[in-house]
Amino acid sequence: MKLAELAKRSGSWLQGEGPLAGIVISSRVRLARNLAGYPFLSRCDHQQKLEIQEFLRQQTSELATAEPLEYINIDEAEALDQQLLVERHLISRQHAEANGARGMAYSASEKISIMINEEDHLRLQALQPGLRLDEAWQEVDALDDLFEAKMDYAFSSRLGYLTACPTNVGTGIRVSVMLHLPGLKMSGQMEKVIRSARDMHLAVRGLHGEGTQAAGDFYQVSNQRTLGASEQQIIDEFKNGVVPRIVDYEQKTRDKLLTEHAHFVDDKAFRALGTLQNARTISSEESLELLSHLRMGVTLDRVSGLKLDTLNELFLRTQAAHLQQIENRTMSAEERGVARAKYIRQELNPN
Amino acid sequence: MKLAELAKRSGSWLQGEGPLAGIVISSRVRLARNLAGYPFLSRCDHQQKLEIQEFLRQQTSELATAEPLEYINIDEAEALDQQLLVERHLISRQHAEANGARGMAYSASEKISIMINEEDHLRLQALQPGLRLDEAWQEVDALDDLFEAKMDYAFSSRLGYLTACPTNVGTGIRVSVMLHLPGLKMSGQMEKVIRSARDMHLAVRGLHGEGTQAAGDFYQVSNQRTLGASEQQIIDEFKNGVVPRIVDYEQKTRDKLLTEHAHFVDDKAFRALGTLQNARTISSEESLELLSHLRMGVTLDRVSGLKLDTLNELFLRTQAAHLQQIENRTMSAEERGVARAKYIRQELNPN
Repeated sequence: MKLAELAKRSGSWLQGEGPLAGIVISSRVRLARNLAGYPFLSRCDHQQKLEIQEFLRQQTSELATAEPLEYINIDEAEALDQQLLVERHLISRQHAEANGARGMAYSASEKISIMINEEDHLRLQALQPGLRLDEAWQEVDALDDLFEAKMDYAFSSRLGYLTACPTNVGTGIRVSVMLHLPGLKMSGQMEKVIRSARDMHLAVRGLHGEGTQAAGDFYQVSNQRTLGASEQQIIDEFKNGVVPRIVDYEQKTRDKLLTEHAHFVDDKAFRALGTLQNARTISSEESLELLSHLRMGVTLDRVSGLKLDTLNELFLRTQAAHLQQIENRTMSAEERGVARAKYIRQELNPN
Repeated sequence: MKLAELAKRSGSWLQGEGPLAGIVISSRVRLARNLAGYPFLSRCDHQQKLEIQEFLRQQTSELATAEPLEYINIDEAEALDQQLLVERHLISRQHAEANGARGMAYSASEKISIMINEEDHLRLQALQPGLRLDEAWQEVDALDDLFEAKMDYAFSSRLGYLTACPTNVGTGIRVSVMLHLPGLKMSGQMEKVIRSARDMHLAVRGLHGEGTQAAGDFYQVSNQRTLGASEQQIIDEFKNGVVPRIVDYEQKTRDKLLTEHAHFVDDKAFRALGTLQNARTISSEESLELLSHLRMGVTLDRVSGLKLDTLNELFLRTQAAHLQQIENRTMSAEERGVARAKYIRQELNPN
């Protein structure tokens, strides 16, 4: 376990002071890129994958980024280190679980991360707390320029950037926000939101993106369109149209719940607090659900004396790999339940 | 609501200091009696019922009991007063819900209560905290002597006391204990206990006797046999045989749970505490269940700073009629949920 120190840090993208931080947890922009002169990964042989990895690792190490980048060879990393990076949203679950030569790099603030040999040869990601899509775009765009100055990307003047999956062709951009929507969930309106989002060609996914369930009332909303518009147009549409609409809907629903069913809202939040402060064993699913209820109570000023940062960090550090990294040993699910409950009690009980 | 003051008192039979009070909540002995010269109630007309009620009310008022008895005309009582008496185990649910001339009387300590025109003309009950069947028997026997000195009971020298239901013929005695068996419940052994009890001709019922569910892990165990043995024999068999065996089984199960699954026991007890200290609305069923888990934690010395008395009183006063009597108004189920949660928070939170 090389990443134990990382587990103890709080991702700067999780600090609860970003714009609309009560509802928008984080903003993310990622770009998909491939090297000219190599086939897409599904058609690469072992040797080619190794070459790509080695080339991109070398190039990454020479980049003049503002923050230095730490490189991890994912193929050789321990399972708990791989899982930790997934839990911190620095790599995808698919990247952790794949086989073959592959790597990643991240900046100390974790606002920048890079995947090598995931679905594409290169994936660049910028992560920011709250609703900060412009900042994320600027970060990832600058990183992209640094790479592009050093290599030839697979690019078509007609189609734009070429990618392994046709849905990414063109700009190769994916813009996403992580939203906390307990009000819409409690009031049974999430189905409607998901349907409308689909009508607007958006994807609504769970906490860890593609193929994951919406746990703890967290939803990742992202664009599907990558072709026929500039990156800035895609971001503006997202930032000015879709996101404020969902945020406004959630906010109005919370206000309505509070006006008409204050006991219900308080009951959810305080029961969550009472259980979290007292449980002697707790699963990650239940922790997520209760932390979500508590987070809503805190953002609505119903529960006092708790910082959003504390809760955001608990979301992160109560996950399985984080717990084990912090305790520096592998644990069974039963042991994790006990350790998780203990850790939460320490964080949520005064003195 | 005439009984609001009663609602605020703690039944002395609920004070947690009786023998084996961690497991045996209370001991009860009741006698079924009928007047000679009148048919059983099912065959009485309106006028006869009135006569019996009036006669027994008059006789009750003249009894030289140690504590004075308070008489309540159940037929004319408000529904909330009737329900309060049921919740305090002073009358049966059947008696509250019946029609026609009927009454009850109780002593200030609530250790003695009398029902007039329930299933039999007269039912005498003595209630004691903990395992105190001899005391209960002596109390009810003395009361029975006082009545018998003033009237003729329906009695057959061959069968003994005659009662409306053949299962009570003979001694007319029913001996019962209220047991708190969360250990046996949690470990899935209650079915076995109930089967064995039936084999020993015992009935196992819920919190409010006949026809009620076992709520909050409370079970009322009572004899079925009333014929062919003396009252003292029936009590001795119960007191020395059945009860200690179940109590011992529960105690061993609790000890085993604690040795082998301490986290599980603590988790149940502390989660209950956390929820009860924080909920903003709670049903009577959930209160019972959580108070039960907490009670086990307190009796096993896992949760400190809480008295058994406090919990026993919460069991009593969180019931629907008690809540409304204490607040002195009728409330909807939703209002009761909020009032119940508030009351529990006051009792369980320091300062």
